Amino acid sequence: MQLSGRNQLQGKITSVNLGAVMANIKIEVTEPNVITAVITKESAEKLGLAEGDDVTAIIKSTEVIIGK
Amino acid sequence: MQLSGRNQLQGKITSVNLGAVMANIKIEVTEPNVITAVITKESAEKLGLAEGDDVTAIIKSTEVIIGK
Amino acid sequence: MQLSGRNQLQGKITSVNLGAVMANIKIEVTEPNVITAVITKESAEKLGLAEGDDVTAIIKSTEVIIGK
Amino acid sequence: MQLSGRNQLQGKITSVNLGAVMANIKIEVTEPNVITAVITKESAEKLGLAEGDDVTAIIKSTEVIIGK
Amino acid sequence: MQLSGRNQLQGKITSVNLGAVMANIKIEVTEPNVITAVITKESAEKLGLAEGDDVTAIIKSTEVIIGK
Amino acid sequence: MQLSGRNQLQGKITSVNLGAVMANIKIEVTEPNVITAVITKESAEKLGLAEGDDVTAIIKSTEVIIGK
Repeated sequence: MQLSGRNQLQGKITSVNLGAVMANIKIEVTEPNVITAVITKESAEKLGLAEGDDVTAIIKSTEVIIGK
Repeated sequence: MQLSGRNQLQGKITSVNLGAVMANIKIEVTEPNVITAVITKESAEKLGLAEGDDVTAIIKSTEVIIGK
Repeated sequence: MQLSGRNQLQGKITSVNLGAVMANIKIEVTEPNVITAVITKESAEKLGLAEGDDVTAIIKSTEVIIGK
Repeated sequence: MQLSGRNQLQGKITSVNLGAVMANIKIEVTEPNVITAVITKESAEKLGLAEGDDVTAIIKSTEVIIGK
Repeated sequence: MQLSGRNQLQGKITSVNLGAVMANIKIEVTEPNVITAVITKESAEKLGLAEGDDVTAIIKSTEVIIGK
Repeated sequence: MQLSGRNQLQGKITSVNLGAVMANIKIEVTEPNVITAVITKESAEKLGLAEGDDVTAIIKSTEVIIGK
């Protein structure tokens, strides 16, 4: 499946922090850039996310703010 | 001003494409990664965005989807 | 690739309306429900979206508002 | 009040899971489709969301990603 | 209908700018604060949005970034 | 740094409520309007957000829904 989300950054998970409802996932995309993703705990568990996993961070272009 | 948005990627604008209401901006963050941002044409003009500008792409962590 | 986005609705495209920067896509997910997606024109063209295509509408759970 | 959010799916709540700050709500919109919404715990309590409630899941069209 | 979106600001439309797919709407919420909303042209037309209309700007709390 | 996010409301924090992963922040922008922001606990701590802080609530215009 191809996705319309223009931004798809490959990376490796460096930490998974589960709360009651949400989970905070750190993904190293290119040294030294780290992407923080907050997803449901449910998704983190269904995908079995763990440190060292190769994943893709997908970001729709309408969600990006530009600072200059 | 510091921002709560966890993901702040430095880069350089490689193209600006203006529509009637929206604008599509390409930002090279680290070769070969390019971030696509869609912002209002109004913002693109107020910030005077142009090819070669050094900018920051800011993405709130709740907006990131993970693919595995 | 599995996605963390909890909401993935299968459907068929019923119309594609391209603007200069954005595109409005109608997806019939289950009769009579139609999902409207606004994506970049660029994505619509890269995925070659056309009437009759079988697609999936993916929606992150943090993007849903509840009315009661 | 009419809303600009194009996607408004009627459904019934099948589960409410409260965390400290956020709440995960499952809404059966059309069998067998279930929408997952993550909203603040505060909203879940102010609206008194409970299993069996008839609700509407509202999704702005810019939040939808298309997979093909 | 009550909405889970925590932020609901009453205001008056001061301008409507239609593009091919999207529309830029300015809403004066409290002098001198103006909220800019970008919605589909389709929604702007279905709701018949025009200068002087009393409307509510609804913003989900997960969409707010804080600068300090 | 100037931001493309069109909506930037100055205010004062009136409460900070930390969960395991997320934090709920109330910002009084103009009496009696209060903006609720849900950000990561991590951001709330990195910015040292506390009652009485002068902050800016930043909202991208594509995130606003209009009710009429």
